[in-house]
Amino acid sequence: MPQKQILKKFRTQKDEYVSRDQLTSDAGISDTQLKDEILSLKKEGYIIDSSPELGYRLIKTPNRLLPYEIQLDLTTNFIGQEIHHYSEVDSTNEVAKELAEKGAPEGTIIIAESQRSGKGRRGKKWLSPSGGVWMTIILRPDIPLSQAPLLTLVTGVAVAETLAQDCNLDVGIKWPNDILIGEKKVCGILTEASARGKELEYVVVGVGIDLNVDVEAFPPKLREGATSLKRELDKEIPGVKLVQDFMVNFENLYNEFTQGQLTEILNQWRRLSKTIGSYVEVHQKGRTVRGEAVGISKEGILILEMDDGSLQKVISGECIHYKGKL
Amino acid sequence: MPQKQILKKFRTQKDEYVSRDQLTSDAGISDTQLKDEILSLKKEGYIIDSSPELGYRLIKTPNRLLPYEIQLDLTTNFIGQEIHHYSEVDSTNEVAKELAEKGAPEGTIIIAESQRSGKGRRGKKWLSPSGGVWMTIILRPDIPLSQAPLLTLVTGVAVAETLAQDCNLDVGIKWPNDILIGEKKVCGILTEASARGKELEYVVVGVGIDLNVDVEAFPPKLREGATSLKRELDKEIPGVKLVQDFMVNFENLYNEFTQGQLTEILNQWRRLSKTIGSYVEVHQKGRTVRGEAVGISKEGILILEMDDGSLQKVISGECIHYKGKL
Repeated sequence: MPQKQILKKFRTQKDEYVSRDQLTSDAGISDTQLKDEILSLKKEGYIIDSSPELGYRLIKTPNRLLPYEIQLDLTTNFIGQEIHHYSEVDSTNEVAKELAEKGAPEGTIIIAESQRSGKGRRGKKWLSPSGGVWMTIILRPDIPLSQAPLLTLVTGVAVAETLAQDCNLDVGIKWPNDILIGEKKVCGILTEASARGKELEYVVVGVGIDLNVDVEAFPPKLREGATSLKRELDKEIPGVKLVQDFMVNFENLYNEFTQGQLTEILNQWRRLSKTIGSYVEVHQKGRTVRGEAVGISKEGILILEMDDGSLQKVISGECIHYKGKL
Repeated sequence: MPQKQILKKFRTQKDEYVSRDQLTSDAGISDTQLKDEILSLKKEGYIIDSSPELGYRLIKTPNRLLPYEIQLDLTTNFIGQEIHHYSEVDSTNEVAKELAEKGAPEGTIIIAESQRSGKGRRGKKWLSPSGGVWMTIILRPDIPLSQAPLLTLVTGVAVAETLAQDCNLDVGIKWPNDILIGEKKVCGILTEASARGKELEYVVVGVGIDLNVDVEAFPPKLREGATSLKRELDKEIPGVKLVQDFMVNFENLYNEFTQGQLTEILNQWRRLSKTIGSYVEVHQKGRTVRGEAVGISKEGILILEMDDGSLQKVISGECIHYKGKL
């Protein structure tokens, strides 16, 4: 808490020195405590200049997803009002589940700077080096269990909207849960629900965005289909604003969703979809289906028109887009 | 031709008097002919001031879809390079078919200021009072007959794009062939193909836009679901620019279509669609189907998800949108 107040003070007196008296009285701490807090801020990457006469001056904020930076001017009502930040975890979804079991409130966010064993769908490993956004949201929606998978679509729209609005790139969604720039994956979403009987207890939605990640360091097989915002824009992207914007967009869409306004969200998904209109191959357990993706149903089910003209619903699977088949 | 040259001269010397000598020499006509041409321009609605010493000055151009106005700075290659203009016809589609039979080139446009018996789909009458855009395009695409109905979708995208870009309204498409503002119809499209055996001879695409039409004068039953641009924007809209913009957009999309680039056009249609995502009722000959519209196929066929979860293709019919059913 004192750190948050110190940083707030720095920001209100932008680029200026703040006297020790002001800082200690604002944060309600002693001179010695102030020194300690400044030291620990420096350890977190803040560059702070000190002058014996003038006090302290904030020179640079680290490009890290630190909770008080995210919360400083966050305009959400409940998403991200509680943030748990880790420098490294096995998986933010696993941490989220533990916290949810212990009663963490709706909207709690778990952020890690890197994950040792990030998870993708179908038990796949998800590479999560530092520089990316690895976070999970805890949700407690009052919806039937069967609707929980729709949260993947809601989240996909929120991510795609955020990237489009912040970065002006050709952002789209690949069914069911990948965000693409052009045809390359930049974000994955993993939704896991916990139910007791038929009762939905909580949902954790994991979002992994390759923000300032060096895709070149990925194994060759992953590198091919992946990209990062840093690579696309050829510069480091400030993560805090992106995460804040995502939280605002997500909260709005999630509110619409829980109020039953699914139609508009699905239409946004359809507009953002790079799958609809593509000839696709969907790999499912034990079989593969191929066809022209012509729509999604209100349950988020993909609809394929097969080569013989018949229609088929595809509930889940690994989807590959083919171009120029039409 | 002399009229076109006279108008061109007026435009290059905007708001200024042009001497009789300049006009006669530019148009290659005599003084007496010039007087006649000026008189006939005035009859068409041009307001022209004359001064014994200074010559003539164009004060106002009528808000009419006159061929030389449309062609004056038209940037298309073939759409609208030949325009047949009528103050009143039975139906522009009928005139277009006659002209097509006589060999009129691809891109020929028939425009009427009003239609005595404008046609809608399924033999319905289409009200075509003066103030609207009633036109038909003659096309000779090298495509299989089965693909001709797709020209309705191509045209729908061109109209919707034009209205969106020129008027900044909530424009969308109702499957298969209506352009809506909000949920009210502002434009209908009627595609008719002529084939000899399996060979497509020509296609005429009729486009009717309620531009500066007083919808209040429609019979009550039609008034309810209809609107005009004049009504939406509460002012008269210059028709020439709108028609020119439509021709440019249509030509681009039509070129893509005949070059086999259907995917992007279908995706534009899907993005503009107000049907996909709506609960609809489709009236067909002898039966009615109801369901959630979840997509369209690459043949332009509507895909419904029925209440029992099954999928059904709907090739044609009269479609009604229901709101708030989801």
